[in-house]
Amino acid sequence: MITKGTKICIVGLGLLGGSYAQKLSLLGFNVSAVDKNMESIEYALKMHYIQNGSNDPSLVKDADLVIFGLYPMALVKWLKENQHYLKKGCICTDVTGIKQMLIEKIKPFLRLDINFIFAHPMCGKEFSGVENSDPRIFKDANFIIIKNDNIVAMQTIEQLANILGFAQVSYLNAQKHDEMIAFLSQLTHVIAVCLMNCKDDEDLKKYTGDSFRDLTRIAKINENLWYELFVENKDLLLKQMDEFMLTLNDFRVSLANEDETKIKSLFRQATKRRREFDNR
Amino acid sequence: MITKGTKICIVGLGLLGGSYAQKLSLLGFNVSAVDKNMESIEYALKMHYIQNGSNDPSLVKDADLVIFGLYPMALVKWLKENQHYLKKGCICTDVTGIKQMLIEKIKPFLRLDINFIFAHPMCGKEFSGVENSDPRIFKDANFIIIKNDNIVAMQTIEQLANILGFAQVSYLNAQKHDEMIAFLSQLTHVIAVCLMNCKDDEDLKKYTGDSFRDLTRIAKINENLWYELFVENKDLLLKQMDEFMLTLNDFRVSLANEDETKIKSLFRQATKRRREFDNR
Repeated sequence: MITKGTKICIVGLGLLGGSYAQKLSLLGFNVSAVDKNMESIEYALKMHYIQNGSNDPSLVKDADLVIFGLYPMALVKWLKENQHYLKKGCICTDVTGIKQMLIEKIKPFLRLDINFIFAHPMCGKEFSGVENSDPRIFKDANFIIIKNDNIVAMQTIEQLANILGFAQVSYLNAQKHDEMIAFLSQLTHVIAVCLMNCKDDEDLKKYTGDSFRDLTRIAKINENLWYELFVENKDLLLKQMDEFMLTLNDFRVSLANEDETKIKSLFRQATKRRREFDNR
Repeated sequence: MITKGTKICIVGLGLLGGSYAQKLSLLGFNVSAVDKNMESIEYALKMHYIQNGSNDPSLVKDADLVIFGLYPMALVKWLKENQHYLKKGCICTDVTGIKQMLIEKIKPFLRLDINFIFAHPMCGKEFSGVENSDPRIFKDANFIIIKNDNIVAMQTIEQLANILGFAQVSYLNAQKHDEMIAFLSQLTHVIAVCLMNCKDDEDLKKYTGDSFRDLTRIAKINENLWYELFVENKDLLLKQMDEFMLTLNDFRVSLANEDETKIKSLFRQATKRRREFDNR
Protein backbone atom coordinates (compact mmCIF):
# COMPACT_ATOMS: atom_id res chain seq x y z
CA MET A 1 0.00 0.00 0.00
CA ILE A 2 1.23 3.44 -0.92
CA THR A 3 0.58 5.98 1.84
CA LYS A 4 1.68 9.53 2.42
CA GLY A 5 4.56 8.06 4.42
CA THR A 6 5.83 5.96 1.49
CA LYS A 7 9.25 7.11 0.32
CA ILE A 8 9.29 7.19 -3.47
CA CYS A 9 12.46 7.48 -5.53
CA ILE A 10 12.52 7.97 -9.29
CA VAL A 11 15.61 6.80 -11.14
CA GLY A 12 15.88 8.51 -14.52
CA LEU A 13 14.19 11.89 -14.83
CA GLY A 14 13.08 11.92 -18.45
CA LEU A 15 9.66 12.68 -19.86
CA LEU A 16 7.99 9.82 -18.00
CA GLY A 17 10.04 9.88 -14.81
CA GLY A 18 9.50 13.63 -14.66
CA SER A 19 5.76 13.30 -15.20
CA TYR A 20 5.50 10.67 -12.45
CA ALA A 21 7.50 12.93 -10.10
CA GLN A 22 5.43 15.99 -10.92
CA LYS A 23 2.08 14.28 -10.31
CA LEU A 24 3.19 12.48 -7.13
CA SER A 25 4.64 15.66 -5.63
CA LEU A 26 1.50 17.60 -6.50
CA LEU A 27 -0.48 15.01 -4.56
CA GLY A 28 1.77 15.48 -1.53
CA PHE A 29 3.93 12.37 -1.72
CA ASN A 30 7.56 12.30 -0.69
CA VAL A 31 9.52 12.07 -3.96
CA SER A 32 13.26 11.98 -4.54
CA ALA A 33 15.15 11.32 -7.77
CA VAL A 34 18.43 9.98 -9.10
CA ASP A 35 19.70 11.04 -12.51
CA LYS A 36 23.25 11.08 -13.87
CA ASN A 37 22.47 14.47 -15.35
CA MET A 38 22.54 17.09 -12.55
CA GLU A 39 20.76 19.62 -14.78
CA SER A 40 17.67 17.42 -14.79
CA ILE A 41 17.82 17.11 -11.02
CA GLU A 42 18.20 20.85 -10.60
CA TYR A 43 15.32 21.55 -12.95
CA ALA A 44 13.06 19.11 -11.05
CA LEU A 45 14.04 20.64 -7.70
CA LYS A 46 13.40 24.16 -8.97
CA MET A 47 9.98 23.12 -10.30
CA HIS A 48 9.16 21.26 -7.05
CA TYR A 49 8.72 17.97 -8.91
CA ILE A 50 11.01 16.40 -6.28
CA GLN A 51 12.01 17.22 -2.73
CA ASN A 52 15.48 15.73 -2.98
CA GLY A 53 17.76 14.62 -5.81
CA SER A 54 21.25 13.46 -6.66
CA ASN A 55 23.44 11.92 -9.33
CA ASP A 56 24.58 9.45 -6.66
CA PRO A 57 22.65 6.16 -6.98
CA SER A 58 22.98 5.46 -3.25
CA LEU A 59 20.11 7.94 -2.75
CA VAL A 60 17.70 5.04 -3.46
CA LYS A 61 18.64 3.31 -0.21
CA ASP A 62 15.73 4.70 1.86
CA ALA A 63 13.06 4.31 -0.80
CA ASP A 64 10.08 1.98 -0.31
CA LEU A 65 9.02 2.39 -3.94
CA VAL A 66 11.56 2.84 -6.75
CA ILE A 67 10.33 3.85 -10.21
CA PHE A 68 12.81 3.37 -13.05
CA GLY A 69 12.34 5.87 -15.87
CA LEU A 70 15.34 4.49 -17.80
CA TYR A 71 15.67 3.07 -21.32
CA PRO A 72 15.68 -0.75 -21.35
CA MET A 73 19.44 -1.39 -21.58
CA ALA A 74 20.24 1.45 -19.18
CA LEU A 75 17.89 -0.17 -16.67
CA VAL A 76 19.70 -3.53 -16.92
CA LYS A 77 23.06 -1.80 -16.49
CA TRP A 78 21.85 0.31 -13.56
CA LEU A 79 20.53 -2.71 -11.69
CA LYS A 80 23.72 -4.70 -12.28
CA GLU A 81 25.85 -1.91 -10.88
CA ASN A 82 23.60 -0.50 -8.18
CA GLN A 83 21.00 -2.98 -6.96
CA HIS A 84 22.98 -3.47 -3.74
CA TYR A 85 21.79 0.02 -2.72
CA LEU A 86 18.11 -0.95 -2.87
CA LYS A 87 16.33 -1.41 0.46
CA LYS A 88 15.43 -4.98 1.35
CA GLY A 89 11.75 -5.60 0.50
CA CYS A 90 11.29 -2.45 -1.54
CA ILE A 91 8.95 -2.45 -4.54
CA CYS A 92 10.38 -1.51 -7.94
CA THR A 93 8.71 -0.78 -11.24
CA ASP A 94 9.67 0.51 -14.68
CA VAL A 95 8.15 2.30 -17.68
CA THR A 96 9.75 0.54 -20.64
CA GLY A 97 7.86 -0.43 -23.78
CA ILE A 98 9.22 -3.98 -24.19
CA LYS A 99 9.22 -6.71 -21.58
CA GLN A 100 10.28 -10.23 -22.59
CA MET A 101 13.93 -9.49 -23.36
CA LEU A 102 14.16 -7.07 -20.46
CA ILE A 103 12.84 -9.54 -17.92
CA GLU A 104 15.03 -12.31 -19.32
CA LYS A 105 18.07 -10.10 -18.85
CA ILE A 106 17.21 -8.89 -15.36
CA LYS A 107 15.74 -12.00 -13.76
CA PRO A 108 18.95 -14.05 -13.50
CA PHE A 109 20.77 -11.52 -11.34
CA LEU A 110 17.99 -9.62 -9.58
CA ARG A 111 18.15 -9.79 -5.79
CA LEU A 112 15.44 -12.09 -4.42
CA ASP A 113 14.49 -9.62 -1.66
CA ILE A 114 13.41 -7.00 -4.23
CA ASN A 115 9.80 -6.96 -5.49
CA PHE A 116 10.06 -5.91 -9.12
CA ILE A 117 6.76 -5.38 -10.95
CA PHE A 118 7.29 -4.59 -14.62
CA ALA A 119 4.81 -2.11 -16.02
CA HIS A 120 4.13 -0.13 -19.18
CA PRO A 121 2.38 3.21 -18.96
CA MET A 122 1.06 3.57 -22.53
CA CYS A 123 1.54 7.25 -23.00
CA GLY A 124 4.16 9.60 -24.29
CA LYS A 125 4.88 12.68 -26.28
CA GLU A 126 6.96 13.63 -29.25
CA PHE A 127 9.39 15.52 -27.02
CA SER A 128 11.65 13.99 -24.40
CA GLY A 129 13.29 15.23 -21.21
CA VAL A 130 12.09 16.33 -17.78
CA GLU A 131 11.41 19.84 -19.16
CA ASN A 132 8.58 18.35 -21.23
CA SER A 133 7.04 16.29 -18.46
CA ASP A 134 3.31 16.66 -18.09
CA PRO A 135 1.02 14.42 -16.02
CA ARG A 136 -1.90 15.13 -18.38
CA ILE A 137 -0.48 12.42 -20.66
CA PHE A 138 -1.77 9.81 -18.14
CA LYS A 139 -5.41 10.77 -18.63
CA ASP A 140 -7.21 8.38 -21.03
CA ALA A 141 -4.09 6.17 -21.20
CA ASN A 142 -3.78 2.45 -20.57
CA PHE A 143 -1.42 1.10 -17.91
CA ILE A 144 -0.23 -2.47 -18.34
CA ILE A 145 1.17 -4.56 -15.51
CA ILE A 146 3.13 -7.70 -16.32
CA LYS A 147 1.63 -10.53 -14.32
CA ASN A 148 3.70 -12.42 -11.76
CA ASP A 149 2.87 -14.20 -8.51
CA ASN A 150 3.65 -11.32 -6.18
CA ILE A 151 0.04 -10.22 -5.59
CA VAL A 152 0.73 -7.58 -2.95
CA ALA A 153 3.40 -5.83 -5.03
CA MET A 154 1.17 -5.94 -8.13
CA GLN A 155 -1.65 -4.33 -6.16
CA THR A 156 0.72 -1.58 -5.07
CA ILE A 157 1.63 -0.80 -8.68
CA GLU A 158 -2.06 -0.86 -9.65
CA GLN A 159 -2.63 1.64 -6.86
CA LEU A 160 0.24 3.75 -8.26
CA ALA A 161 -1.41 3.75 -11.70
CA ASN A 162 -4.68 4.87 -10.15
CA ILE A 163 -2.97 7.60 -8.16
CA LEU A 164 -1.27 8.84 -11.33
CA GLY A 165 -4.65 9.01 -13.06
CA PHE A 166 -4.44 6.32 -15.75
CA ALA A 167 -7.76 5.46 -17.37
CA GLN A 168 -7.41 1.69 -17.23
CA VAL A 169 -5.10 -0.89 -15.68
CA SER A 170 -4.67 -4.29 -17.37
CA TYR A 171 -2.63 -7.38 -16.59
CA LEU A 172 -0.79 -9.24 -19.34
CA ASN A 173 2.03 -11.71 -19.57
CA ALA A 174 5.26 -10.44 -21.11
CA GLN A 175 4.89 -12.37 -24.38
CA LYS A 176 1.36 -11.13 -25.06
CA HIS A 177 2.39 -7.59 -24.09
CA ASP A 178 5.25 -7.58 -26.56
CA GLU A 179 3.11 -8.99 -29.37
CA MET A 180 0.48 -6.35 -28.77
CA ILE A 181 3.06 -3.58 -28.65
CA ALA A 182 4.77 -4.85 -31.81
CA PHE A 183 1.50 -4.41 -33.66
CA LEU A 184 -0.19 -1.44 -32.01
CA SER A 185 2.80 0.74 -31.31
CA GLN A 186 5.97 -0.40 -33.08
CA LEU A 187 4.47 -1.24 -36.48
CA THR A 188 2.65 2.10 -36.53
CA HIS A 189 5.92 3.92 -35.86
CA VAL A 190 7.61 1.98 -38.68
CA ILE A 191 4.79 2.95 -41.05
CA ALA A 192 4.95 6.62 -40.09
CA VAL A 193 8.73 6.70 -40.53
CA CYS A 194 8.51 4.93 -43.91
CA LEU A 195 5.78 7.30 -45.12
CA MET A 196 8.06 10.25 -44.40
CA ASN A 197 11.06 8.58 -45.99
CA CYS A 198 9.51 7.17 -49.15
CA LYS A 199 9.04 10.46 -50.98
CA ASP A 200 11.16 13.58 -51.09
CA ASP A 201 9.02 16.28 -52.62
CA GLU A 202 9.08 19.82 -51.31
CA ASP A 203 5.56 20.38 -52.68
CA LEU A 204 3.98 17.74 -50.45
CA LYS A 205 3.85 20.10 -47.51
CA LYS A 206 1.61 22.49 -49.42
CA TYR A 207 -1.03 19.92 -50.24
CA THR A 208 -1.10 17.83 -47.09
CA GLY A 209 -4.45 17.10 -45.55
CA ASP A 210 -5.39 15.80 -42.12
CA SER A 211 -5.06 12.13 -43.02
CA PHE A 212 -1.37 12.31 -43.90
CA ARG A 213 -0.69 14.48 -40.86
CA ASP A 214 -2.45 11.98 -38.60
CA LEU A 215 -0.54 9.04 -40.02
CA THR A 216 2.86 10.68 -39.67
CA ARG A 217 2.67 12.57 -36.39
CA ILE A 218 4.66 9.82 -34.66
CA ALA A 219 7.37 9.95 -37.35
CA LYS A 220 9.00 12.51 -35.09
CA ILE A 221 10.80 9.80 -33.19
CA ASN A 222 13.42 9.56 -30.45
CA GLU A 223 16.11 7.66 -32.34
CA ASN A 224 17.97 6.17 -29.37
CA LEU A 225 14.93 4.97 -27.46
CA TRP A 226 13.10 3.54 -30.45
CA TYR A 227 16.12 1.83 -31.95
CA GLU A 228 16.50 -0.01 -28.66
CA LEU A 229 12.78 -0.87 -28.43
CA PHE A 230 12.73 -2.20 -32.00
CA VAL A 231 15.87 -4.30 -31.66
CA GLU A 232 14.86 -5.75 -28.30
CA ASN A 233 11.52 -6.80 -29.79
CA LYS A 234 12.89 -7.56 -33.25
CA ASP A 235 11.39 -10.98 -33.95
CA LEU A 236 7.86 -9.97 -33.01
CA LEU A 237 8.10 -6.69 -34.89
CA LEU A 238 9.40 -8.38 -38.05
CA LYS A 239 6.48 -10.81 -37.81
CA GLN A 240 3.97 -7.96 -37.57
CA MET A 241 5.63 -6.14 -40.48
CA ASP A 242 5.37 -9.30 -42.58
CA GLU A 243 1.68 -9.74 -41.75
CA PHE A 244 1.01 -6.13 -42.61
CA MET A 245 2.92 -6.35 -45.91
CA LEU A 246 0.94 -9.46 -46.86
CA THR A 247 -2.32 -7.63 -46.17
CA LEU A 248 -1.10 -4.66 -48.18
CA ASN A 249 -0.08 -6.90 -51.03
CA ASP A 250 -3.48 -8.66 -51.06
CA PHE A 251 -5.11 -5.27 -51.28
CA ARG A 252 -2.78 -4.37 -54.16
CA VAL A 253 -3.86 -7.47 -56.08
CA SER A 254 -7.55 -6.72 -55.48
CA LEU A 255 -7.11 -3.16 -56.67
CA ALA A 256 -5.10 -4.16 -59.74
CA ASN A 257 -7.95 -6.54 -60.65
CA GLU A 258 -10.60 -3.94 -59.77
CA ASP A 259 -12.22 -6.59 -57.58
CA GLU A 260 -15.10 -4.42 -56.40
CA THR A 261 -16.76 -7.02 -54.18
CA LYS A 262 -13.52 -7.82 -52.35
CA ILE A 263 -12.40 -4.21 -51.88
CA LYS A 264 -15.79 -3.04 -50.65
CA SER A 265 -15.95 -5.91 -48.18
CA LEU A 266 -12.46 -4.96 -46.89
CA PHE A 267 -13.68 -1.36 -46.52
CA ARG A 268 -16.74 -2.50 -44.58
CA GLN A 269 -14.69 -4.76 -42.30
CA ALA A 270 -12.18 -1.98 -41.56
CA THR A 271 -14.96 0.50 -40.86
CA LYS A 272 -16.78 -1.88 -38.53
CA ARG A 273 -13.66 -2.81 -36.56
CA ARG A 274 -12.48 0.78 -36.27
CA ARG A 275 -15.88 1.95 -35.01
CA GLU A 276 -15.60 -0.56 -32.16
CA PHE A 277 -12.38 1.19 -31.08
CA ASP A 278 -14.43 4.33 -30.52
CA ASN A 279 -16.72 2.53 -28.07
CA ARG A 280 -14.33 0.92 -25.65
CA MET B 1 -16.92 37.66 -59.84
CA ILE B 2 -19.34 36.27 -57.28
CA THR B 3 -21.67 38.96 -55.94
CA LYS B 4 -24.78 38.87 -53.79
CA GLY B 5 -26.73 38.75 -57.05
CA THR B 6 -24.98 35.59 -58.29
CA LYS B 7 -27.36 32.66 -58.54
CA ILE B 8 -25.68 29.57 -57.13
CA CYS B 9 -26.97 26.05 -57.64
CA ILE B 10 -25.55 22.98 -55.93
CA VAL B 11 -26.06 19.65 -57.66
CA GLY B 12 -25.66 16.79 -55.18
CA LEU B 13 -26.39 17.61 -51.55
CA GLY B 14 -24.00 15.32 -49.71
CA LEU B 15 -21.53 16.22 -47.00
CA LEU B 16 -19.58 18.64 -49.19
CA GLY B 17 -22.47 20.02 -51.25
CA GLY B 18 -24.40 20.52 -48.01
CA SER B 19 -21.47 22.27 -46.33
CA TYR B 20 -21.03 24.61 -49.33
CA ALA B 21 -24.79 25.38 -49.27
CA GLN B 22 -24.84 25.99 -45.54
CA LYS B 23 -21.91 28.41 -45.59
CA LEU B 24 -23.05 30.30 -48.69
CA SER B 25 -26.58 30.73 -47.34
CA LEU B 26 -25.25 31.89 -44.00
CA LEU B 27 -23.31 34.58 -45.86
CA GLY B 28 -26.49 35.73 -47.62
CA PHE B 29 -26.00 34.24 -51.07
CA ASN B 30 -28.85 32.93 -53.20
CA VAL B 31 -28.46 29.13 -53.12
CA SER B 32 -30.62 26.47 -54.74
CA ALA B 33 -29.98 22.74 -55.00
CA VAL B 34 -30.73 19.71 -57.12
CA ASP B 35 -30.63 16.22 -55.66
CA LYS B 36 -32.37 13.05 -56.80
CA ASN B 37 -33.18 12.39 -53.15
CA MET B 38 -36.02 14.67 -52.07
CA GLU B 39 -35.34 13.96 -48.40
CA SER B 40 -31.97 15.71 -48.74
CA ILE B 41 -33.66 18.68 -50.40
CA GLU B 42 -36.32 18.87 -47.70
CA TYR B 43 -33.73 18.68 -44.96
CA ALA B 44 -31.67 21.47 -46.56
CA LEU B 45 -34.78 23.64 -46.98
CA LYS B 46 -35.83 23.07 -43.38
CA MET B 47 -32.33 23.98 -42.15
CA HIS B 48 -32.21 27.05 -44.44
CA TYR B 49 -29.11 25.74 -46.21
CA ILE B 50 -30.94 26.49 -49.50
CA GLN B 51 -33.75 28.78 -50.57
CA ASN B 52 -35.02 26.53 -53.31
CA GLY B 53 -34.56 22.88 -54.27
CA SER B 54 -35.80 20.11 -56.53
CA ASN B 55 -35.11 16.63 -57.83
CA ASP B 56 -35.64 18.06 -61.31
CA PRO B 57 -32.28 18.87 -62.93
CA SER B 58 -33.82 21.68 -64.99
CA LEU B 59 -33.61 23.83 -61.84
CA VAL B 60 -29.98 24.60 -62.78
CA LYS B 61 -31.09 26.65 -65.80
CA ASP B 62 -30.96 30.06 -64.06
CA ALA B 63 -27.71 29.46 -62.17
CA ASP B 64 -24.60 31.56 -62.84
CA LEU B 65 -22.45 29.25 -60.72
CA VAL B 66 -23.08 25.51 -60.53
CA ILE B 67 -21.25 23.44 -57.91
CA PHE B 68 -21.30 19.68 -58.43
CA GLY B 69 -21.16 17.72 -55.18
CA LEU B 70 -21.42 14.37 -56.99
CA TYR B 71 -19.16 11.31 -57.03
CA PRO B 72 -16.92 11.19 -60.12
CA MET B 73 -18.91 8.78 -62.29
CA ALA B 74 -22.24 10.30 -61.25
CA LEU B 75 -20.90 13.68 -62.35
CA VAL B 76 -19.99 12.36 -65.81
CA LYS B 77 -23.44 10.79 -66.16
CA TRP B 78 -25.25 13.91 -64.93
CA LEU B 79 -23.46 16.12 -67.42
CA LYS B 80 -24.13 13.74 -70.31
CA GLU B 81 -27.84 13.68 -69.54
CA ASN B 82 -28.45 17.21 -68.34
CA GLN B 83 -25.84 19.67 -69.58
CA HIS B 84 -28.36 21.10 -72.04
CA TYR B 85 -30.10 22.70 -69.03
CA LEU B 86 -27.03 24.72 -68.04
CA LYS B 87 -27.11 28.45 -68.75
CA LYS B 88 -24.82 29.62 -71.55
CA GLY B 89 -21.65 31.08 -70.02
CA CYS B 90 -22.22 29.74 -66.52
CA ILE B 91 -19.28 28.72 -64.38
CA CYS B 92 -19.20 25.15 -63.07
CA THR B 93 -16.97 23.46 -60.51
CA ASP B 94 -16.78 20.14 -58.68
CA VAL B 95 -15.43 18.65 -55.44
CA THR B 96 -14.08 15.27 -56.55
CA GLY B 97 -10.79 13.83 -55.33
CA ILE B 98 -9.43 12.63 -58.69
CA LYS B 99 -9.03 14.66 -61.84
CA GLN B 100 -7.20 13.16 -64.82
CA MET B 101 -9.70 10.41 -65.66
CA LEU B 102 -12.62 12.67 -64.84
CA ILE B 103 -11.47 15.47 -67.13
CA GLU B 104 -10.64 13.00 -69.90
CA LYS B 105 -14.17 11.63 -69.69
CA ILE B 106 -15.93 14.99 -69.56
CA LYS B 107 -13.87 17.09 -71.96
CA PRO B 108 -14.93 15.35 -75.23
CA PHE B 109 -18.61 16.09 -74.79
CA LEU B 110 -18.72 19.19 -72.57
CA ARG B 111 -20.48 22.16 -74.15
CA LEU B 112 -17.98 24.81 -75.24
CA ASP B 113 -20.08 27.65 -73.79
CA ILE B 114 -19.71 26.25 -70.24
CA ASN B 115 -16.76 27.35 -68.06
CA PHE B 116 -15.85 24.28 -66.05
CA ILE B 117 -13.13 24.74 -63.42
CA PHE B 118 -12.25 21.48 -61.71
CA ALA B 119 -11.39 21.85 -58.04
CA HIS B 120 -10.65 19.72 -55.00
CA PRO B 121 -11.55 21.00 -51.55
CA MET B 122 -9.23 18.90 -49.36
CA CYS B 123 -11.50 18.31 -46.45
CA GLY B 124 -14.02 15.77 -45.31
CA LYS B 125 -15.40 13.83 -42.44
CA GLU B 126 -15.95 10.20 -41.56
CA PHE B 127 -19.72 10.63 -42.00
CA SER B 128 -21.52 11.40 -45.23
CA GLY B 129 -24.80 13.05 -46.15
CA VAL B 130 -26.26 16.54 -45.92
CA GLU B 131 -27.23 15.91 -42.26
CA ASN B 132 -23.53 15.85 -41.41
CA SER B 133 -22.58 18.96 -43.35
CA ASP B 134 -20.49 21.45 -41.43
CA PRO B 135 -18.61 24.41 -42.92
CA ARG B 136 -16.00 24.23 -40.13
CA ILE B 137 -14.29 21.50 -42.16
CA PHE B 138 -13.06 24.23 -44.56
CA LYS B 139 -10.99 25.99 -41.92
CA ASP B 140 -7.27 25.07 -42.15
CA ALA B 141 -7.97 23.06 -45.33
CA ASN B 142 -6.28 23.30 -48.73
CA PHE B 143 -8.29 24.05 -51.84
CA ILE B 144 -6.77 22.92 -55.15
CA ILE B 145 -7.80 24.35 -58.50
CA ILE B 146 -6.87 22.47 -61.67
CA LYS B 147 -5.15 24.92 -63.97
CA ASN B 148 -6.60 25.74 -67.38
CA ASP B 149 -6.51 28.83 -69.59
CA ASN B 150 -9.82 30.32 -68.45
CA ILE B 151 -8.34 32.93 -66.10
CA VAL B 152 -11.58 34.71 -65.22
CA ALA B 153 -13.40 31.52 -64.32
CA MET B 154 -10.41 30.31 -62.26
CA GLN B 155 -10.40 33.59 -60.34
CA THR B 156 -14.11 33.13 -59.62
CA ILE B 157 -13.48 29.69 -58.13
CA GLU B 158 -10.55 31.06 -56.11
CA GLN B 159 -12.95 33.70 -54.82
CA LEU B 160 -15.44 30.93 -53.96
CA ALA B 161 -12.73 29.12 -51.96
CA ASN B 162 -11.96 32.31 -50.08
CA ILE B 163 -15.63 32.97 -49.38
CA LEU B 164 -16.01 29.43 -48.04
CA GLY B 165 -13.06 30.01 -45.69
CA PHE B 166 -10.37 27.66 -47.00
CA ALA B 167 -6.92 28.28 -45.58
CA GLN B 168 -4.99 28.12 -48.83
CA VAL B 169 -5.73 27.97 -52.55
CA SER B 170 -3.23 26.29 -54.90
CA TYR B 171 -3.13 25.65 -58.63
CA LEU B 172 -1.96 22.32 -60.02
CA ASN B 173 -2.28 20.42 -63.26
CA ALA B 174 -4.44 17.30 -63.18
CA GLN B 175 -1.54 14.84 -63.41
CA LYS B 176 0.38 16.39 -60.51
CA HIS B 177 -2.84 16.64 -58.47
CA ASP B 178 -3.58 12.96 -58.90
CA GLU B 179 -0.01 11.93 -58.05
CA MET B 180 -0.09 14.00 -54.88
CA ILE B 181 -3.49 12.65 -53.89
CA ALA B 182 -2.41 9.06 -54.59
CA PHE B 183 0.37 9.49 -52.04
CA LEU B 184 -1.03 11.89 -49.44
CA SER B 185 -4.62 10.74 -49.32
CA GLN B 186 -5.22 7.43 -51.08
CA LEU B 187 -2.14 5.54 -49.85
CA THR B 188 -2.87 6.64 -46.28
CA HIS B 189 -6.42 5.30 -46.56
CA VAL B 190 -5.09 1.99 -47.91
CA ILE B 191 -2.69 1.75 -44.96
CA ALA B 192 -5.40 2.51 -42.41
CA VAL B 193 -7.74 -0.06 -43.93
CA CYS B 194 -4.99 -2.71 -44.06
CA LEU B 195 -4.01 -2.03 -40.43
CA MET B 196 -7.58 -2.72 -39.35
CA ASN B 197 -7.85 -5.80 -41.56
CA CYS B 198 -4.52 -7.47 -40.84
CA LYS B 199 -5.31 -8.63 -37.31
CA ASP B 200 -8.49 -9.88 -35.73
CA ASP B 201 -7.95 -9.81 -32.00
CA GLU B 202 -10.69 -8.71 -29.62
CA ASP B 203 -8.05 -7.75 -27.04
CA LEU B 204 -6.48 -5.06 -29.25
CA LYS B 205 -9.16 -2.58 -28.32
CA LYS B 206 -8.20 -2.75 -24.66
CA TYR B 207 -4.55 -1.89 -25.22
CA THR B 208 -4.74 0.63 -28.01
CA GLY B 209 -2.80 3.84 -27.59
CA ASP B 210 -2.99 7.13 -29.43
CA SER B 211 -0.65 6.15 -32.23
CA PHE B 212 -2.78 3.26 -33.48
CA ARG B 213 -5.92 5.36 -33.14
CA ASP B 214 -4.32 8.17 -35.16
CA LEU B 215 -3.21 5.84 -37.93
CA THR B 216 -6.59 4.15 -38.30
CA ARG B 217 -9.09 6.98 -37.85
CA ILE B 218 -9.59 7.13 -41.64
CA ALA B 219 -10.22 3.38 -41.83
CA LYS B 220 -13.88 4.31 -41.33
CA ILE B 221 -14.34 4.73 -45.03
CA ASN B 222 -17.23 5.39 -47.43
CA GLU B 223 -17.02 2.24 -49.55
CA ASN B 224 -18.77 3.51 -52.70
CA LEU B 225 -16.93 6.81 -52.93
CA TRP B 226 -13.47 5.45 -52.16
CA TYR B 227 -13.78 2.43 -54.40
CA GLU B 228 -14.47 4.82 -57.26
CA LEU B 229 -11.63 7.18 -56.31
CA PHE B 230 -9.16 4.29 -56.07
CA VAL B 231 -10.16 2.68 -59.37
CA GLU B 232 -10.20 5.96 -61.28
CA ASN B 233 -6.67 6.69 -60.03
CA LYS B 234 -5.53 3.08 -60.03
CA ASP B 235 -2.21 3.32 -61.85
CA LEU B 236 -0.89 6.17 -59.73
CA LEU B 237 -2.10 4.59 -56.50
CA LEU B 238 -0.51 1.24 -57.35
CA LYS B 239 2.75 3.08 -58.05
CA GLN B 240 2.63 4.81 -54.66
CA MET B 241 1.82 1.53 -52.92
CA ASP B 242 4.82 -0.09 -54.60
CA GLU B 243 7.15 2.73 -53.54
CA PHE B 244 5.87 2.51 -49.98
CA MET B 245 6.25 -1.29 -49.88
CA LEU B 246 9.84 -0.95 -51.13
CA THR B 247 10.61 1.55 -48.38
CA LEU B 248 8.98 -0.72 -45.82
CA ASN B 249 10.95 -3.68 -47.09
CA ASP B 250 14.24 -1.75 -46.93
CA PHE B 251 13.44 -0.90 -43.34
CA ARG B 252 12.70 -4.55 -42.67
CA VAL B 253 16.13 -5.56 -43.98
CA SER B 254 17.87 -2.89 -41.87
CA LEU B 255 16.02 -4.04 -38.76
CA ALA B 256 16.71 -7.72 -39.40
CA ASN B 257 20.42 -6.83 -39.69
CA GLU B 258 20.27 -4.52 -36.67
CA ASP B 259 21.84 -1.85 -38.85
CA GLU B 260 21.95 0.84 -36.16
CA THR B 261 23.55 3.56 -38.31
CA LYS B 262 21.02 3.12 -41.11
CA ILE B 263 17.95 2.93 -38.88
CA LYS B 264 18.93 5.94 -36.80
CA SER B 265 19.57 7.97 -39.94
CA LEU B 266 16.10 6.98 -41.25
CA PHE B 267 14.62 8.08 -37.91
CA ARG B 268 16.41 11.42 -38.13
CA GLN B 269 15.31 12.02 -41.72
CA ALA B 270 11.69 11.19 -40.89
CA THR B 271 11.74 13.45 -37.83
CA LYS B 272 13.27 16.35 -39.76
CA ARG B 273 10.83 16.08 -42.67
CA ARG B 274 7.80 15.71 -40.41
CA ARG B 275 8.77 18.75 -38.34
CA GLU B 276 8.74 20.83 -41.53
CA PHE B 277 5.09 19.83 -42.01
CA ASP B 278 4.32 21.55 -38.72
CA ASN B 279 5.71 24.86 -40.00
CA ARG B 280 3.92 25.41 -43.25
